Amino acid sequence: MADVAEALARIKRGCDELIVEEDMVRKLKTGRPLRIKLGLDPTAPDLHLGHTVVINKLRHFQDLGHQVQFLIGDFTGMIGDPTGKNQTRPPLSREQILENAQSYRAQMSKILDPDKTQVMFNSEWSDKLGAEGMIRLASRYTLARLLERDDFSKRYKGGQAIAVHELLYPLMQGYDSVAMKADVELGGTDQKFNLLVGRELQRTYGQEPQCILTMPLLEGLDGKEKMSKSLGNYVGIAEPPQEQFGKLMSISDELMWRYIDLLSFSSQSEKMKWKDEHPRDVKVRFAKEIVARFHSQEAAAAAEADFDSRFRRGETPEDIPKVTLHASAEGLPITQVLKQANLVPSSNEAQRAIEQGGVKIDGERASDRALRLKPGASVVIQVGKRKFARVRLT
Amino acid sequence: MADVAEALARIKRGCDELIVEEDMVRKLKTGRPLRIKLGLDPTAPDLHLGHTVVINKLRHFQDLGHQVQFLIGDFTGMIGDPTGKNQTRPPLSREQILENAQSYRAQMSKILDPDKTQVMFNSEWSDKLGAEGMIRLASRYTLARLLERDDFSKRYKGGQAIAVHELLYPLMQGYDSVAMKADVELGGTDQKFNLLVGRELQRTYGQEPQCILTMPLLEGLDGKEKMSKSLGNYVGIAEPPQEQFGKLMSISDELMWRYIDLLSFSSQSEKMKWKDEHPRDVKVRFAKEIVARFHSQEAAAAAEADFDSRFRRGETPEDIPKVTLHASAEGLPITQVLKQANLVPSSNEAQRAIEQGGVKIDGERASDRALRLKPGASVVIQVGKRKFARVRLT
Repeated sequence: MADVAEALARIKRGCDELIVEEDMVRKLKTGRPLRIKLGLDPTAPDLHLGHTVVINKLRHFQDLGHQVQFLIGDFTGMIGDPTGKNQTRPPLSREQILENAQSYRAQMSKILDPDKTQVMFNSEWSDKLGAEGMIRLASRYTLARLLERDDFSKRYKGGQAIAVHELLYPLMQGYDSVAMKADVELGGTDQKFNLLVGRELQRTYGQEPQCILTMPLLEGLDGKEKMSKSLGNYVGIAEPPQEQFGKLMSISDELMWRYIDLLSFSSQSEKMKWKDEHPRDVKVRFAKEIVARFHSQEAAAAAEADFDSRFRRGETPEDIPKVTLHASAEGLPITQVLKQANLVPSSNEAQRAIEQGGVKIDGERASDRALRLKPGASVVIQVGKRKFARVRLT
Repeated sequence: MADVAEALARIKRGCDELIVEEDMVRKLKTGRPLRIKLGLDPTAPDLHLGHTVVINKLRHFQDLGHQVQFLIGDFTGMIGDPTGKNQTRPPLSREQILENAQSYRAQMSKILDPDKTQVMFNSEWSDKLGAEGMIRLASRYTLARLLERDDFSKRYKGGQAIAVHELLYPLMQGYDSVAMKADVELGGTDQKFNLLVGRELQRTYGQEPQCILTMPLLEGLDGKEKMSKSLGNYVGIAEPPQEQFGKLMSISDELMWRYIDLLSFSSQSEKMKWKDEHPRDVKVRFAKEIVARFHSQEAAAAAEADFDSRFRRGETPEDIPKVTLHASAEGLPITQVLKQANLVPSSNEAQRAIEQGGVKIDGERASDRALRLKPGASVVIQVGKRKFARVRLT
C-alpha cells in the first residue's frame, strides 16, 4: 500500500490534472505493468524541451515498472490535410513516417528506457475500420460533446468554417486508446479534450476507461508564449551544446525556477536548497544538467567554459571575425566603426549602444561618443553580450 | 428548341421547385438521355400513393427518353441504426435488401417502363471508400452547412443529441450522386437539403452539378398530415381494389382535387372540365383510375359495383356476419342487441349511435332508443357506413 501511495505521489508530481485519481490507485494496486499512451504527430520529429515535460513523466512511469506506448498517428498523417488549405500538413509517405518514428525513438532514448518503450502506428487498426467502421465509431459520440472542445466552439460561434472531417479526428484519436487498451494517456493541458474522448470511447466499447494525466505547457525562452518551433522560442534537444547552454543562460530567473520545476531530475529537497544560492550559479548548474542529458557531461563542461570565456571573464572568444576598415588621418568616428564592422545596424544605434554602456574596446567600456580610431589601430570591440569584432584600421 | 421547351414544361408540371432551370435547359439541349436519380430507403418496400407522386414524375422523364436510376441505400441499410436507439431501423441482411429491391421493382412496374429503369446499390462504391475515403469525403463539407438542415438545426438548438454519424449520412447520400454521375435527382420537398448536398459535392468533385426537382408531399386521407404508413392515413399501392376504392371515396372534395392534381394521368384540359361535374362522379372516376393503375379496369369496375351495393343503394353486402342472440319474452333492448352483436363497444355508444341517426334496421333508420326485438325476429342491422350484422333472436 505504501508503494502505491509513493508511486501515486511520483506520478502526480508536476502534473496539471489527473483524471480520476481513484481509478489510478485501483490500476496501480493491480500490480501489473500499465500501458501508458502518448500520441505523437508524425509530421514533426524535432523535439524541444517543451515536449520533454511529458516525456520525463513517461520516464517516471517506466521507473515504476510500466510500459510506454508511443502512438504515431500515421493514418491521418498519410492523409495530410485533405482540404489542402493547411500547408504545414502535407501528406506523408509511409517511408517518411517510418523515418520520423525512428528519429523520435532516437531522440527519446536520451530520456527513456528503450526496452520499456514500444512504438505503434494507428494505421494498423484505422485502415481496418473501413467506411462502415467509421460510421459506427462516429455513432458513439455526439456533436454537442465535440463542440465543447474549445477551438471548435470558438470557431463555430465565430462563424469560422469547420470541415466535417475535423470532427472525426478526435474520435480516431480516441479509438487509438480503444485499440491499444491504454490504461493511462498523457498529454499537455491543451490535449485534455482529446484524451477525454479516448476515455469515453473506451467506456462505450466496454473497456475500463483510461486515466488521463495532463502536464503543464512549458513557456518558451520569452517566458510568455508556449515553447514552439514556429515561435523560435525553443531549445531543441538535438541542438549543439553551446546553443542549448547559451539559450538557457539567457532566461529570466523567474522562468529558470519554472524550468527547473518541470525539467530538472534533481529531487525536490535538493531543489529547495538551491533557493539559497546565487541564481546565476543555479542557472549554470541547471543548464549543464540539460546539456549533459542530451549530449554528455564533457559537452556540458565545455559549453560552460566556452560561455564563460565569451561573456563572463570578459575574454574574447577565439573565433571572432576580423574586419579591416579605412580611416582618414583624423581617424574614423567610433559610431562609423561600429556600423561598418556590422556590430550595429546604424550610426544612431551605435550612439545609443555607447550611451547605454554596451560597447567595450579591448575590454574597457567606451563612453565617449566622439572617439575616433586612427589608422594603424587594432582593437577588439564588443557590443552587447555576444557581438564581437577584431578591427584593424588602415 | 420547341421540344426542349415542351419537355421543360412537362418536367416542371406539378413540381415544387426546380434547381436550377437554366441548368436543366442546358442538359435537355444536349439531347442525350439524362440519368435521373431517386434514392430509396431499403427498409420499407411497401409503396403508397404518396410515393407515387415522385414516381409519376420519373415516368415523365422516361416518356421524354431519359434513364431512371433507383438508388437503394443498402450500405447504410446494412448498418441500421448503430446507436441501437431507433427500433424502426434494424440492420438488414444482403438477402433482405435484394428482396426489398425486387419488391420495389415489381411495385413500380405498374408505373414505369422496366427497360428504362435501372436499380443500383450504393454499397458498391461506399464500401470502397474505406476509412480514408470517408475522411476525405467529410473534408469536402462544413459543419455549418450541415447544421443548416432543418431538423439538425432544431435538434442542435433544442439541446437534443445528434450523433456524429448522422452528419455523415447526407454526405454519403450526396456521394451517391457523384458515383452515379446523376444529371437530375428527384425527391419530396422534405429531401431538398440532402439533394443539394449531392449537387454541391458533385461540384467539388469536378462534375457538372445535378439538377434538383422536388415534388410536393401528398397529404394523407385525413387531409392534414403527410401520407405515411405509420400514421395509417395512406392508400397502399398493393392494397386490394375494394380497400383502395373505399379509401379514396372517403376523402373530402377539397382533398380530391389535390389528389387529382398530383396523381391523375388525365390531361390538364380534361381535369378542367371535371370542375363542372358533380364531385361524387369525379371522385368515382378518379378512384377507378387509381385502382385500374395498380390492378385492372375490371377490378376497378368491380370495386365500384361493390361500393355502390354497400353504401349507395342501401343494399347490404353479401358477406355480412350472422349473429344469433337470446331474447326474453318481452324482447331484447336494441342497445343490448347492438352491443351483443359487436356493432358498438358499449350500450352508451349504442344510444349515441341511435340518437345520431347512425343505426338502420332492414334499411330503415332506427330512432327509438327503447325499441325491443322479440324472439323470432330476424333483421339486418347497419351501424354507420360499414358495420353490418344479420341478427336472429331466439
